[in-house]
Amino acid sequence: MLDTLTRNLSQTTSIEDLETPCLVLNRSKVERNIARLNGHLWALGVALRPHLKTCKSIEVARLAMPGAYGPAAVSTLKEAEQFAAAGVRDILYAVGIAPQKLPRVQALRSAGTDLSIILDSVEQAEAVAAASAGGDPIPVLIEIDSDGHRAGIRPEDREMLTAVGRAVHEGGAELRGVLTHAGESYHCKGIAALEAMAEQERAAAVSCAATLRDAGLPCPVVSVGSTPTAHFARDLTGVTEVRAGVYIFFDLVMAGIGVCKIEDIALAVLATVVGRRPDRNLLIIDAGWMALSRDRGTAGQEVDQGYGLVCDLDGIPYPDLVVVDTNQEHGVVSLRAGSSASLPDLPIGAHILILPNHACATASQHDCYHVVDAAGTPVSAICPRFGGW
Amino acid sequence: MLDTLTRNLSQTTSIEDLETPCLVLNRSKVERNIARLNGHLWALGVALRPHLKTCKSIEVARLAMPGAYGPAAVSTLKEAEQFAAAGVRDILYAVGIAPQKLPRVQALRSAGTDLSIILDSVEQAEAVAAASAGGDPIPVLIEIDSDGHRAGIRPEDREMLTAVGRAVHEGGAELRGVLTHAGESYHCKGIAALEAMAEQERAAAVSCAATLRDAGLPCPVVSVGSTPTAHFARDLTGVTEVRAGVYIFFDLVMAGIGVCKIEDIALAVLATVVGRRPDRNLLIIDAGWMALSRDRGTAGQEVDQGYGLVCDLDGIPYPDLVVVDTNQEHGVVSLRAGSSASLPDLPIGAHILILPNHACATASQHDCYHVVDAAGTPVSAICPRFGGW
Repeated sequence: MLDTLTRNLSQTTSIEDLETPCLVLNRSKVERNIARLNGHLWALGVALRPHLKTCKSIEVARLAMPGAYGPAAVSTLKEAEQFAAAGVRDILYAVGIAPQKLPRVQALRSAGTDLSIILDSVEQAEAVAAASAGGDPIPVLIEIDSDGHRAGIRPEDREMLTAVGRAVHEGGAELRGVLTHAGESYHCKGIAALEAMAEQERAAAVSCAATLRDAGLPCPVVSVGSTPTAHFARDLTGVTEVRAGVYIFFDLVMAGIGVCKIEDIALAVLATVVGRRPDRNLLIIDAGWMALSRDRGTAGQEVDQGYGLVCDLDGIPYPDLVVVDTNQEHGVVSLRAGSSASLPDLPIGAHILILPNHACATASQHDCYHVVDAAGTPVSAICPRFGGW
Repeated sequence: MLDTLTRNLSQTTSIEDLETPCLVLNRSKVERNIARLNGHLWALGVALRPHLKTCKSIEVARLAMPGAYGPAAVSTLKEAEQFAAAGVRDILYAVGIAPQKLPRVQALRSAGTDLSIILDSVEQAEAVAAASAGGDPIPVLIEIDSDGHRAGIRPEDREMLTAVGRAVHEGGAELRGVLTHAGESYHCKGIAALEAMAEQERAAAVSCAATLRDAGLPCPVVSVGSTPTAHFARDLTGVTEVRAGVYIFFDLVMAGIGVCKIEDIALAVLATVVGRRPDRNLLIIDAGWMALSRDRGTAGQEVDQGYGLVCDLDGIPYPDLVVVDTNQEHGVVSLRAGSSASLPDLPIGAHILILPNHACATASQHDCYHVVDAAGTPVSAICPRFGGW
């Protein structure tokens, strides 16, 4: 699918021919990452709904979805509109709905997309029910707060859950189920903690589904997921679908909590050395926070990767070499504090690859992926990304 | 100039009619901020070269530049190309040049733009001299490291400075002058420290210009600048131009170091309440790091503004209300730790304005500005922004 998009590419375009900074995506790693999570969930008997907020690219999405129609999760209505225009039909908009956004939801549904939404209050349920009165019952998942991360109804608040469920169902919208996201899993340390968080996420969603069913309300869908819990779930009894997004690319945060290895990270920023300061043991590159993002997700982890881990063009990390600071279009590359390694002798104009802390954030700073089939091979495709809301 | 761009606007489009999240720009504050710095520098007898990396919009740039042709500074060749296409003729690309980028520099110059570049090594100077051999001497400023911030030649390293100057001049490029940027001024505390940093920046640039002239080399331009030092310079003897960018919008970081007041900040993100958690004393909004950026520039300041300070639609801050956490499309709004204020009673669907930590970073997450002439007035224009490299 990626091969269909080739823009200004000759057979021999190397990544060294690209304007920097830019994104380089390793297709074989993407395919391996996708196969890994699908295999894990297949064995547990649950389907995967890929979250497309990380890739924001129809070509990458098609590698992750089981078929052209989906399923998919998105984080903005812009994503829903873009993927719907590309033929995806089963889309979950996984951010609490604002009433003002319902006309765009309805427009997508009228055009043939099975777009579902989420909410966690009677206020929202009443607004969605009112919008559904026009004849199209909007499908709703009720958001559950399984870990105190941000939004949702607490699983023990059965009264609120039932009240929201009734407002959706009896108001005339479609009560499709419950959804939770264990975002706190990003802060877990060790396999046991990740397994426990996955079970906590499952148990919360399943118990809320039971609460709704006990109240005589429908709850066909039980949706859970985050990349860490998806990989460390050992049992998904009662769950009907798992959502995850960053697993497609992986990143240094995921490596830091043990969900992947450094060599699984499929996304990197290509940059050029534009200054050398041997007096201060550092290099200046043309990738600052505009190209890398300001995300410092590894700052609280055991190994702080700065603004990214520096690799050669084969994707092999230089020992202890990280982006220690950034300005808008400048990156400062140096050795990790306390390192006994030496700064590689990279001349002005040399290229490096930088692995990102957080793939979603870094990818969002760019408008396309330069795809290579494997490390060191020519650029085989350029896939556009979109942004905005 | 802004009025020329009206896209899908009726006379009565209020910011409450906009899709969220989005950028709102207060034109009267922009004009006041621009007039303030120009007035200060006029009194010191030095011209301002606006750095357009913050606005990335030709309409905003035209408010800041003295005329249609410039002068301007940019941080990417994409900016140079976009502004040149809009008629700007005097452009400084203020990031150390990589030899691979010289063909784009030359293409812009051939098309009639006086594009100058910066460098800080003999290696780069030789590459630029070689490129100039085709008959167009590329204008070069030598970058000086006046504060240990990142790139540049240390002022005391006269031998290196002269060697680079000779490689430029005798190699056949145009040695146009010296340039420095006191980026460390962002970490200054108090007026005396800011004034001292401005003087340090001036003295470094002027002494390096003298070094070059003493060696028989030309140095017509002495370029200094950062938004803090530009505002706190008391004497600019020997300086020919000052560069600054974020002064057009200002932000919470600039307010935190005393360069502006909170009410001078012209840029805000409009967001919608999409969840309420009275049990945890917080609100969920539809502006996460994708809309606000991950920039936490106030984290090390006296007042930590989280991911942004929350205001009503007139731009008046709610007491102690900040965005305490973000995910990709979720913001968590709560009171500052230790606050005795109470959470405002904002319903689902309510709008708020969020002042940014760092205007450059927040603006870069969006593709346009929704301009209002003053707080509370209708949207008078939509000005596109561009990104990329």
